[in-house]
Amino acid sequence: MDISKFVGLSLGRWRSQRSAHHLAFGHFEQVTSTIDIVSLDRADLEVTNLCTSYNIDSHQAAHPFRMSWKGESDWDEEAETFEGTTILVPIPDPDNLKSGRLLRDRGYAETIPSVGKYRISEDGIFILETEYERATAEEKIWFVNPNFRLRVSLIKTSGGSGVVTASFSSEIRSLASDSEKESQV
Amino acid sequence: MDISKFVGLSLGRWRSQRSAHHLAFGHFEQVTSTIDIVSLDRADLEVTNLCTSYNIDSHQAAHPFRMSWKGESDWDEEAETFEGTTILVPIPDPDNLKSGRLLRDRGYAETIPSVGKYRISEDGIFILETEYERATAEEKIWFVNPNFRLRVSLIKTSGGSGVVTASFSSEIRSLASDSEKESQV
Repeated sequence: MDISKFVGLSLGRWRSQRSAHHLAFGHFEQVTSTIDIVSLDRADLEVTNLCTSYNIDSHQAAHPFRMSWKGESDWDEEAETFEGTTILVPIPDPDNLKSGRLLRDRGYAETIPSVGKYRISEDGIFILETEYERATAEEKIWFVNPNFRLRVSLIKTSGGSGVVTASFSSEIRSLASDSEKESQV
Repeated sequence: MDISKFVGLSLGRWRSQRSAHHLAFGHFEQVTSTIDIVSLDRADLEVTNLCTSYNIDSHQAAHPFRMSWKGESDWDEEAETFEGTTILVPIPDPDNLKSGRLLRDRGYAETIPSVGKYRISEDGIFILETEYERATAEEKIWFVNPNFRLRVSLIKTSGGSGVVTASFSSEIRSLASDSEKESQV
């Protein structure tokens, strides 16, 4: 597994079930969403702008993509809907397709641009660490098969000492021909 | 990380939050439980009996332990309580503390004795695969820090082709001096 394969496998529409464990008070949050991941061109203006804002030559970008999501959470008493979109630009380390930086125009723990460090483990797990101003996010993503992927995300306090939230997503690929129909996982 | 360290870190009392995703119908199940893991002696009668039932010399056993749990699930409309206990006996591969078999007197997917194959990845993730008669279970367990561990479990159809259930546990160590008080994670 390298960044090319990983992004390639991620493209498409996914139906996601996410459970967040808010650890301090043992709360469970349930989220269902649809996630769309589409490939972007390295020359795309949004990609070049994001690279420029980090003083990075966009020719170093590998497989930039856009991720959009739309879903529903049971956080409040009534189901709360949400949606969003972000672009993500992997910048592999020189001569290494298994590690690098990931630029993002809207972060996960804080909705500001972020830059994380990724690496891909021997077992094919994509591991991303991102430091924000007030929190650190650590994410592990892996494919059980091409139509089923799992994500474990941790939000830690700044400095990484305490874990605040642990969440788990199981994502099933939707067949393109019929968005209501899902792949056999 | 090797099997000795892994079992050593696992000993104690844990407060567990578990979310199960039943994939076919997108159902979320929430489980909270207390888990106790205690070390057993290799010469313990239950350990030697389990080894004997698999024709294994109990001198090959490394760090056998007992795991007990007591908890509550929201599977039914009313919270349903459950409890159980099992003994687990790691049998490391010859000259290898990072892989082997795990004997269990009561399985996870089916409540019959089971024997699984484990290995510990470069990243310190304990990976266990167990084949039952009608299902295959795959479990990944890792420590974020000594007081906080995560578990991802998959139940697949026999043969491992389809994933039926994906579940996620976050487990916080309880301080021994006061079972109501938890460690800072």
